[in-house]
Amino acid sequence: MFIRPGVAPIRLQRQHQAHPHQHGGQQCRPHRRAPSVLSHRLSLNPRAHRDKTIRTRNGYHRCPPDLNTRSAVKFAVIGLNHGHIYGQVEGLLTIPGAQFVGFAAVEDDLAAQFAARYPDVPRRTKSELLADPAIDLIASASINAERGPLGVETLRAGKHYFVDKPPLTRLEDVDAIEAALQASGKMMFVFYGERMSCQFDIKAKQLVQQGAIGEIVHVMGLGPHRLNAPSRPSWFYDPAQYGGTFNDIASHQVEWFVWITGQRIKSFSSRIGRFGSPAPAPASFEDFADATITGENGVTGYVRVDWFTPEKSPIWGDVRGLIVGTKGTIEIRRTINLAAKDDADRKGHMLMTTHELPPHRVDCSQVLIEWPTQIAQSLQQNRNLLLDHDTLLHVMRQTVRMQREATRVR
Amino acid sequence: MFIRPGVAPIRLQRQHQAHPHQHGGQQCRPHRRAPSVLSHRLSLNPRAHRDKTIRTRNGYHRCPPDLNTRSAVKFAVIGLNHGHIYGQVEGLLTIPGAQFVGFAAVEDDLAAQFAARYPDVPRRTKSELLADPAIDLIASASINAERGPLGVETLRAGKHYFVDKPPLTRLEDVDAIEAALQASGKMMFVFYGERMSCQFDIKAKQLVQQGAIGEIVHVMGLGPHRLNAPSRPSWFYDPAQYGGTFNDIASHQVEWFVWITGQRIKSFSSRIGRFGSPAPAPASFEDFADATITGENGVTGYVRVDWFTPEKSPIWGDVRGLIVGTKGTIEIRRTINLAAKDDADRKGHMLMTTHELPPHRVDCSQVLIEWPTQIAQSLQQNRNLLLDHDTLLHVMRQTVRMQREATRVR
Repeated sequence: MFIRPGVAPIRLQRQHQAHPHQHGGQQCRPHRRAPSVLSHRLSLNPRAHRDKTIRTRNGYHRCPPDLNTRSAVKFAVIGLNHGHIYGQVEGLLTIPGAQFVGFAAVEDDLAAQFAARYPDVPRRTKSELLADPAIDLIASASINAERGPLGVETLRAGKHYFVDKPPLTRLEDVDAIEAALQASGKMMFVFYGERMSCQFDIKAKQLVQQGAIGEIVHVMGLGPHRLNAPSRPSWFYDPAQYGGTFNDIASHQVEWFVWITGQRIKSFSSRIGRFGSPAPAPASFEDFADATITGENGVTGYVRVDWFTPEKSPIWGDVRGLIVGTKGTIEIRRTINLAAKDDADRKGHMLMTTHELPPHRVDCSQVLIEWPTQIAQSLQQNRNLLLDHDTLLHVMRQTVRMQREATRVR
Repeated sequence: MFIRPGVAPIRLQRQHQAHPHQHGGQQCRPHRRAPSVLSHRLSLNPRAHRDKTIRTRNGYHRCPPDLNTRSAVKFAVIGLNHGHIYGQVEGLLTIPGAQFVGFAAVEDDLAAQFAARYPDVPRRTKSELLADPAIDLIASASINAERGPLGVETLRAGKHYFVDKPPLTRLEDVDAIEAALQASGKMMFVFYGERMSCQFDIKAKQLVQQGAIGEIVHVMGLGPHRLNAPSRPSWFYDPAQYGGTFNDIASHQVEWFVWITGQRIKSFSSRIGRFGSPAPAPASFEDFADATITGENGVTGYVRVDWFTPEKSPIWGDVRGLIVGTKGTIEIRRTINLAAKDDADRKGHMLMTTHELPPHRVDCSQVLIEWPTQIAQSLQQNRNLLLDHDTLLHVMRQTVRMQREATRVR
């Protein structure tokens, strides 16, 4: 068992041009190899000890003082099929008193890599973990199509569920999750890491709420990704297990639309296509997907994802967000600034221009990453503070519908 | 009469961060005031004299040698309602032997400003110009809704027609133009200046044709504009005269999609809305429009235009184009690079990243602006080399349909 020792801080080394969630700069992909030891090493941070601020690669997490005594969440992991699981675990371990009590994976290679990172955490079976009454929460980054059913099992076993995106792949999953949430009274948290672990997005939301750019007119989310076709596990190319490119990647952008605008989705128009991914990507593999989205109040959105990041790109994906308001514009470059002439200026940034302020980069370096705190507080208050269940179910249902109802252009 | 004196060159001063077509950096709008004298002054360019290259603010125009003796196009102008007309005239005057023989405008203030720029060109009536058998071509940047009917009159008067975008506002206009083209045997040229006068776009087209980024998967065109509501003429706020924001601005992007992909439009999904433009913009004024476009071969496009450029933006519009290919990506910043940290690096640029080449800016400074030459050659060969009429009619019809069939989101 790995017990998070009181408020002793964890510090994760910051990595240049890193993905905002859990992996290096070259590729965002299902997990195959062990993450760099260097990028995950622990070290003490005296400053954090004093003010209970914990700094991770993605920014600061300040733990609410009353969490220290009242919270002692015990969690386990089931499913290691995407490297995001490391980011999920790291975040959970920033919660004071958090105890990581076990993990399950059917793949021995993934389990061995994970065990190397968490040598004190025992490997157990999925059944054992689900049956263990001491476990409060199950975290998972299993195969996409298994995430929905695992959520139902987890909730019905009386545990909270913290799952990587995409949280599920079928409309039936949404219905089953909805029923399980209601029957169990437990909570489901989805790791929409692109915005949850991104200081720019957290700051942007604050600025929008403060009215810095007026009312939102339009949001655009672009998520190109590098495929590196031969490196993918076999389930990735099985549509039944993978669930489609729109659902896999654009689940980020769809949730972002709802979160940043505060609006439900009234209508959408989506497309998928296959334009030319190399073998072993099968004919069924979709390498392009996009959608226009209209919110209840008329706010407009556009999302595009693809698997065409060029091989010589220094980043797995030049992921961007744009928010057009009636009084200003915010542009987020989450991963890289390729428009910079100087390599030293290639880090991502957030740019804001308004009726009052000329174009300027907003300093987000001190913004707190909130999701571990929000999960901890949710458990304390028995209320989902990360994303209320009505909104979460809406987002999941709409995302799957956009995938299933997309026009195949090619 | 203003006669372009043989091959003596015209050199127009280059302006930092200027609109690729004819106006300064603060606002792209229908014409109200005289353009800066400085930005239009003529000067001799000895190098140009030697190799018959003429440099304008937008780049080089090299006149084909055989144009000198065989071409002596006589043109006139009818309608000065958008400042683009200055760019149109300047381009035409780079054609060796071109003669600018008269202009007509019902607005005395616009006529006075124009006359100050071309003091040797007589102001005449529209009827006189259309009836003058010596005139080969009529150029126009009249009120949007008058452009289609003027085109029909011009063609049926036996003259070629060179009109600013949007070329028309109604489906009936397209039908009437089609009939007039057929009946007259004359040609129609539309000034889609965003790409026609942009060195980046010309270079991008060459790179695409050379296969530099593989097959095109997706193109995206973004055209935010500054409204400056009180500065607009009254016709701008009359939907019947203006013809809608999609048709007005996105006519650029729709034509660009067809031109750069080489594909006809198979289907589209468009939206318009009004989110909050200040008075005197009426309730009918659309300040947002976008569309997804699918080409015959499945290639995908997305275009967005709006009137929400923030007041403190240093540019009237941060106009961009993105081309995602199977083997590389091209990003065009036509007007400005706000992602630059250093003000000196804020000029627009074209960035390309491929499977072979890391991100790099493509030098386009020596790219020739081709459209005046193409018009001159079209007149010589009696064949529209700028955009064949079938394609032009297709583009115009689709653009008007996208405007008329758009979903009103707000």
